Amino acid sequence: MKRREFLAAGTAASATMLAAPAIAQSNPTINWRLASAFPSSLSTLYGTAKYIRERVAEATDNEFQIQTFAAGEIVPGGGAVIDAVESGTVECCHTCSYYAIGKDPVFAFGTCMPFGLNSRQADAWLRFGGGQEQLNAFYEGYNLHALAAGNTGVQMGGWFRKELKTVEDLRGIKFRVGGLAGTILSKLGVVPQQLAGGDVYPSLERGVIDAAEWTGPFDDEKLGLYKVAKNYYYPGWWDQGTVISLMINKEKWDALPKKYQAVLSAVSGDANNWMQAQYDHENPAALRRLVAEGAQLRAFPEEIMQACYNATTETYEEISSGNETFAKLLESMMSYRDAASLWWQVSELPYDIAIARAGAARR
Amino acid sequence: MKRREFLAAGTAASATMLAAPAIAQSNPTINWRLASAFPSSLSTLYGTAKYIRERVAEATDNEFQIQTFAAGEIVPGGGAVIDAVESGTVECCHTCSYYAIGKDPVFAFGTCMPFGLNSRQADAWLRFGGGQEQLNAFYEGYNLHALAAGNTGVQMGGWFRKELKTVEDLRGIKFRVGGLAGTILSKLGVVPQQLAGGDVYPSLERGVIDAAEWTGPFDDEKLGLYKVAKNYYYPGWWDQGTVISLMINKEKWDALPKKYQAVLSAVSGDANNWMQAQYDHENPAALRRLVAEGAQLRAFPEEIMQACYNATTETYEEISSGNETFAKLLESMMSYRDAASLWWQVSELPYDIAIARAGAARR
Repeated sequence: MKRREFLAAGTAASATMLAAPAIAQSNPTINWRLASAFPSSLSTLYGTAKYIRERVAEATDNEFQIQTFAAGEIVPGGGAVIDAVESGTVECCHTCSYYAIGKDPVFAFGTCMPFGLNSRQADAWLRFGGGQEQLNAFYEGYNLHALAAGNTGVQMGGWFRKELKTVEDLRGIKFRVGGLAGTILSKLGVVPQQLAGGDVYPSLERGVIDAAEWTGPFDDEKLGLYKVAKNYYYPGWWDQGTVISLMINKEKWDALPKKYQAVLSAVSGDANNWMQAQYDHENPAALRRLVAEGAQLRAFPEEIMQACYNATTETYEEISSGNETFAKLLESMMSYRDAASLWWQVSELPYDIAIARAGAARR
Repeated sequence: MKRREFLAAGTAASATMLAAPAIAQSNPTINWRLASAFPSSLSTLYGTAKYIRERVAEATDNEFQIQTFAAGEIVPGGGAVIDAVESGTVECCHTCSYYAIGKDPVFAFGTCMPFGLNSRQADAWLRFGGGQEQLNAFYEGYNLHALAAGNTGVQMGGWFRKELKTVEDLRGIKFRVGGLAGTILSKLGVVPQQLAGGDVYPSLERGVIDAAEWTGPFDDEKLGLYKVAKNYYYPGWWDQGTVISLMINKEKWDALPKKYQAVLSAVSGDANNWMQAQYDHENPAALRRLVAEGAQLRAFPEEIMQACYNATTETYEEISSGNETFAKLLESMMSYRDAASLWWQVSELPYDIAIARAGAARR
């Protein structure tokens, strides 16, 4: 009912009969629960869920309330939050969709693909390149609807006890790395390890593993890995524009009044920008602190980058041959990346190089 | 009045007495006018004003309506829209703050500074580096309050009839370029020209001017400049993370119910991401079309970039010596840029280079 209709109706009916249901329809009170895939110690990642909660409450005079829960509070973290949304245990979660690649590797496209799009290209593909639309068509089979709500930008390639010089140096390395990157790197002899955040430091210290990746300087600093593995490699070619999504139970989304759908969409788009900005604010200072503590910044040698790129292509071909949706999304995303490449080479890239050079000249 | 109080009150009063004012307080109908600095032909720039209008209407069940007007419809474009907001003729405008540098060069910091922050760094500085806060403290003197609501990313350096090889080649060049870039380039012998969009093509064709810059491939293509000046230079070091702001009359902003302030803030943050994504979607394809039409992509020679950087530093020192707020904001922004540089060199930069190399290998 539109406000004008209500006012007209109001003059013709008693207050007790009319006011309650009419207002309930126009401004229903909604209470949702959001399970974050991340622990509350990660202020950028879990912080974004809180940001969403606060902005939605403000924009609706507290009539749309979203309670947020950190990993482990009501649902374990990681992929479990996606299951909880699918089954309707909670209305929504804030997570990387790629935690669900065990269900189907297509879930990886909602986060990022090795050698795929950078953060800004991901936004462009999702909003204008048909990305979010294709993903939501796929998610519908899991009773899910997603909105992009955060990005980390390019992450680091991880902490290595020993320096890497040739592709041979990867052979036998026990590397804490997950998802598709693990599958790809195993083609080069790496032995991928799955470890929870809290187990990484002691395992690396005791030499149970040889290397570990987490996210970027600001989050990595909290784990203290620079104390036990000094070689800090870049770039993290498997997490280079990592989208964090608000994944919503599809029935709950469909039942949400249009007004609140609009609020949640706007707040997610704002949060998408906010999280990236927070990482871009925190990472530079954290990196300089890590270097001061003795972290050795090292680029993956060109030979290793090339071998990883080739292993990625091979892995994509293998998955695509048995998964039509994967093949379709891969083509959509990678042709988008290739089409953007020339523009990037005459815009962001030369400008960032000019600034790096100017900085070097000032030092 | 909270909804619960209203319901309680509703049971004790007649509908005609109560319903209208109580609802008016909880969901007041607001009508604002937004003057865009841009013509409706610029679908990214003017399109973002329309995007803001639509999202705000949806998120408030049409109770907060913002009428949008393209440049010239009710106010001329460019800096005139800022005057119209300052005086309260319209409630808000969507513009580059740097159109008002005639009032005070400090207005430039709200858009972008030559050799300043790129798009993502600008978001980080505005949201977390104290940028927006410092700007709004300054804008208050003009009865203005601003929200970031769009970015173009790195623009191009413009269309030149002749190739540039040395700094000497800049001498005497009549270049359609505005603002601080014009002041800076005049130190190198360039003769800056102010021309409206529609006059650029005929002036360049007849040789009245030697070069012209506009924005980037998608917008430039519409002017058709590639037909009369083939040399398309990059990067546009004076427009490399150009923020477009929603500038609001401060009294109107303060009088806006908190709920609508929150809606407008969220929608602006979303629009900030949306415009950048649209440029990142449109520019790559437009660039390839321009190259197919004969545009010659050329990097400004290193010698010219260095001379421009030095002229920029000199210009900043001159303005700073007589303008304390300018000096303070310059220090805030440029120290932010310098602090981010190392992180950029191990994250976005090497990743984008890796993708450019991989693309070259595939060709």
